[in-house]
Amino acid sequence: MGQVGKQTWQFQNDIFVHSTGTAVGPIEAKGPLGHCFDIKYDDLHCGQKNWELAERQLMEDSINVCLEKVNLKYEDIDIFLAGDLLNQNVIANYVARGNQIPFLCMFSACSTSMETLAVGASLIEGGFASKVLAAVSSHNATAERQFRSPTEYGGQKPPTANFTVTGAGAILIGKDKNSVKITAATIGRVVDYGISNPYDMGSAMAPAAADTIINHFRDLKRTPKDYDLILTGDLSSVGAPILRKMLSDEGFPVHSNYNDCGLMVYHSDQNVFAGGSGCACSAVVTYGHIIDLIKAGALKRVLVVATGALLSPMMIQQKETIPTIAHGVVFERVE
Amino acid sequence: MGQVGKQTWQFQNDIFVHSTGTAVGPIEAKGPLGHCFDIKYDDLHCGQKNWELAERQLMEDSINVCLEKVNLKYEDIDIFLAGDLLNQNVIANYVARGNQIPFLCMFSACSTSMETLAVGASLIEGGFASKVLAAVSSHNATAERQFRSPTEYGGQKPPTANFTVTGAGAILIGKDKNSVKITAATIGRVVDYGISNPYDMGSAMAPAAADTIINHFRDLKRTPKDYDLILTGDLSSVGAPILRKMLSDEGFPVHSNYNDCGLMVYHSDQNVFAGGSGCACSAVVTYGHIIDLIKAGALKRVLVVATGALLSPMMIQQKETIPTIAHGVVFERVE
Repeated sequence: MGQVGKQTWQFQNDIFVHSTGTAVGPIEAKGPLGHCFDIKYDDLHCGQKNWELAERQLMEDSINVCLEKVNLKYEDIDIFLAGDLLNQNVIANYVARGNQIPFLCMFSACSTSMETLAVGASLIEGGFASKVLAAVSSHNATAERQFRSPTEYGGQKPPTANFTVTGAGAILIGKDKNSVKITAATIGRVVDYGISNPYDMGSAMAPAAADTIINHFRDLKRTPKDYDLILTGDLSSVGAPILRKMLSDEGFPVHSNYNDCGLMVYHSDQNVFAGGSGCACSAVVTYGHIIDLIKAGALKRVLVVATGALLSPMMIQQKETIPTIAHGVVFERVE
Repeated sequence: MGQVGKQTWQFQNDIFVHSTGTAVGPIEAKGPLGHCFDIKYDDLHCGQKNWELAERQLMEDSINVCLEKVNLKYEDIDIFLAGDLLNQNVIANYVARGNQIPFLCMFSACSTSMETLAVGASLIEGGFASKVLAAVSSHNATAERQFRSPTEYGGQKPPTANFTVTGAGAILIGKDKNSVKITAATIGRVVDYGISNPYDMGSAMAPAAADTIINHFRDLKRTPKDYDLILTGDLSSVGAPILRKMLSDEGFPVHSNYNDCGLMVYHSDQNVFAGGSGCACSAVVTYGHIIDLIKAGALKRVLVVATGALLSPMMIQQKETIPTIAHGVVFERVE
């Protein structure tokens, strides 16, 4: 099948989720999905001496637990795809330094989870790999310092702001049959609706999510009814209603089968403003929770659309608006 | 064929180079390959009001000329893969904002040229795209400001320093038969030999180039004699001799069939320290010059190994060393 329509890849061969691993910080551990995550730290430093090392620890943890669950080592993996939010993707690059396997680093901000997974699946389909490992991470303190202000400043934020998830998610995919398959992916286009406020990522990203979801449906001639769940990455309480309206306006209304990882990862009383964001947001919810629901048969077909605000402090200083992108992957239960 | 050995992809289907485009700044235009480049600016601002917009102009120019040569428009392209050196890959992301086609952003520093091309070729082989556009850029003033010091400071540099190429290269690949084929790619691993000096990228990257080249030969059971040219990205006068020795020590000596793009792009009297570097270095030399030599029959089989120093100012401040990576792509003439 391969390319279907303009933006979608359909996988003809069976590509299965072999294992996942998640690691989170203290606030995520206390959230409603806390019990779903493999490794939980009770302090933001994760036993390390600075924030960047803490985030690196999280990505390494997520990978280690992912591989341990299926009793595999790095040398069993054909290729590693990873990314994060930091300048020069330093988390992914330094984790890759330790594993000595072929490595493709990618950046699409908080949509990197599904970018790495989609490309990883395409490499299996193309015959270039049998076992692919994909991982992403984010950390509240590293991201806030780089994109807005160091958290140590204690600056105030408006209620439209997102709260970057401290965590990492890893996923191992391959050809050995089991109950969760990756069947399609839709690669996003860069969308820019003119938002320039770095404290309102939900409004900026909703149009990108809508564009990818609508083109996913059009390419595959499907509707929202074909999915038990359509899950966006980090639109939050601001962006999710915008997306619902945009989908409805285009004839693809979603109802109870839509949710956003940024709204699932925290309790509403956790002081996280509009909800969670960051590469880890979609990754820990999908890899730590959704895959298990599919395995258990509670969900049959899920479209995960990770959303990325391609925010750059320098571009904001140069009076540019924020381009956004969203990449989607379809997970399905097989009997 | 697909995966061969541990790191190499061999392409079974015919994947051809349809077109290329290059745009460069004034120093590159005065270099020995100046006559090879499509668009040349006589000032570093490229008609724009800041360095980032200048670099964006270069990438847009390289793409426009690439598509014009074969009379294609953006809507004829299935997917765009791109990257650059700047934080959040702002050149690639903002160029992609203007083209409205599916987009995969990648970062592997100066090896991004061959990362995007290798993944693009794999997508054609896998049936996910028919026409793939890949582009990278770098700019001396944007890179120096971000990674070292603003050029306006006029700081001194040691002779081991590289000089970031101001330019951009784009390549269009697809299935329509012509005389230059992409036949294989070798995906690099992250290598770190403990170099922490951002003014000596050649020494840092040579081991990554050696690792990728040696594994390329081992995976395909080839030797340097099977290539008319083995071309590294930006090892410069410091790194190139280190690579030669490393290859020789491992039983794969290269002689006159080895060169480095960083040594080809400037005249030795152009005050460029050890030679050129940057994403554009391998891209403008390969896409602007080498492909034409293959077309003309002067070269039959070429291995281009773009080399990337995954340098991050923050990691250097945190006393980390510089991880490096190299990705290789094989171009061959077909009759």
